[in-house]
Amino acid sequence: MKFNSFAELIDMVKGQSNRVVVPGANNTEALTAIKMADDKGLISGGVLIGPVELVKKMMAEIGLAQDKFEFIQCEDVPTMCNLAVEQIVKGKGDFLVKGLVDTKYYMKAILNKEMGLVPQGALLTHFVLFKTDNYHKMFAVTDSAVLISPTLEQKAQAINNAVKILRKLGIEKPKVAVVCPVEKVNEKIPSTVEAQELVKMNQEGKIKDCIVEGPYDLYITFSKERAAEKGIKGAQVAGDADLILLPDLDAANPLYKALAFFGKGTEAATILAGPNIPVILPSRADHPMVKLNAIALCSYLKDQK
Amino acid sequence: MKFNSFAELIDMVKGQSNRVVVPGANNTEALTAIKMADDKGLISGGVLIGPVELVKKMMAEIGLAQDKFEFIQCEDVPTMCNLAVEQIVKGKGDFLVKGLVDTKYYMKAILNKEMGLVPQGALLTHFVLFKTDNYHKMFAVTDSAVLISPTLEQKAQAINNAVKILRKLGIEKPKVAVVCPVEKVNEKIPSTVEAQELVKMNQEGKIKDCIVEGPYDLYITFSKERAAEKGIKGAQVAGDADLILLPDLDAANPLYKALAFFGKGTEAATILAGPNIPVILPSRADHPMVKLNAIALCSYLKDQK
Repeated sequence: MKFNSFAELIDMVKGQSNRVVVPGANNTEALTAIKMADDKGLISGGVLIGPVELVKKMMAEIGLAQDKFEFIQCEDVPTMCNLAVEQIVKGKGDFLVKGLVDTKYYMKAILNKEMGLVPQGALLTHFVLFKTDNYHKMFAVTDSAVLISPTLEQKAQAINNAVKILRKLGIEKPKVAVVCPVEKVNEKIPSTVEAQELVKMNQEGKIKDCIVEGPYDLYITFSKERAAEKGIKGAQVAGDADLILLPDLDAANPLYKALAFFGKGTEAATILAGPNIPVILPSRADHPMVKLNAIALCSYLKDQK
Repeated sequence: MKFNSFAELIDMVKGQSNRVVVPGANNTEALTAIKMADDKGLISGGVLIGPVELVKKMMAEIGLAQDKFEFIQCEDVPTMCNLAVEQIVKGKGDFLVKGLVDTKYYMKAILNKEMGLVPQGALLTHFVLFKTDNYHKMFAVTDSAVLISPTLEQKAQAINNAVKILRKLGIEKPKVAVVCPVEKVNEKIPSTVEAQELVKMNQEGKIKDCIVEGPYDLYITFSKERAAEKGIKGAQVAGDADLILLPDLDAANPLYKALAFFGKGTEAATILAGPNIPVILPSRADHPMVKLNAIALCSYLKDQK
């Protein structure tokens, strides 16, 4: 990876003239993150969509200067989302930051085929990049927010989506662990059977540009020592994973939040994987730093082809 | 709770004359944990079952004195497990410590009705007690190791099993959070529907001696501040949970291991909930400290009715 912490990433993208587009800009959390990004020199302006008078009042309250931004008056949430995507298509902005809009309208506007933000047949998935004190490098988790009960095919697509991002971040061949409760394939635990299938799809070239291993439990995934204790030999991913795929939303969401909440020295950035342009998809309760990190990550990604 | 850290717990149970019974004592990890427990004055001896010559050799290697222990020669794993349960029934020991035996034989021997270690109709479940720097008190997680896809009824039993233990630890009315990806009931996410059902069962008195709330995401579960941000009002469990129930093994196992591996200042103890006597059920790759903590927890529990 081209950077080893969010602080490094922020330093790398400083001074870029990125323009954000925000549907539902009447949102203190989003505006606070934009203020932080502006203070750090990560953005040069953008388009704020929502009830303009209220947006301007909120900006004044948090001390975010108005002169860098364009404003579009809109009170209807689905329309805000459509207008935001239109602004990106018109080249008025570099990436989307979700404000006070429902995720379903936000995703629907992004998925609108006429707009071309999403490649044919693409699936949108959730991608979190983590930094913690207890692992030797940054790593990603998918899918903690979008897919509820992914099929095997959707799991493969979630890996592909994440691998594309990790390659843009400088990891030529990302190491992918399919995380399960146990490291042995057990027909009573369907996630382990699917893990085996995903490994096979990788070996057959159906999941490309990465190395997929599993099923692994979480210890094997993150610790070479634990992997050795469990008799895992000759593995490339065990103890050195760049990406972990969890079985479903029930598993991935609490894990993501546990890492963010309990992890030692943990920082995160959450984005949407799949679209042609970077899209920030924060959870409402995420720390403002998570949103700032996501803006930095999007700034970096927009210049990588 | 009567203690706020494992160090405190260990101090409380020091000097008790507990006797451990270990099927598959030919296991360095188990013997090391017993050595640590012996050094701290937590045990007075016990019964070690397995290939005796090898067990004695391993004890010599790690410096564990042999004179406090009785030995039973046995080479067959299912028999070792049955003999261990028999020793408990005969009053030769206070609790079981799993050595080098398969979990399925260990559980099968414990479940043997003729032995009476398990009440009629009981379900065995996994119970982990955690201490971390990022939460104001100790808390428990269930079920990270036994139930694969628990039914609603099994989830209720898992809560009951855990509540019984927490009450023995001094929490009169444990606060139980049913953890899901989101805090809203959504028919597309079955775990949220079951969470609602469990809350209802608690209100109707079918799940007793505790307060059940949910569905909650992990942030709401552990942070009053996040709960307030999400508009959760008048809740007793939000931000103050003593126990969390996860949707299934796919969710609970990685969460448990993530807390143990990534958590700031995290310590754990894992036991089996449901039997009439304390039973230690470690994961093979758990840190020896986890096993020591479990021995201390069992020492404490054996004297609580």
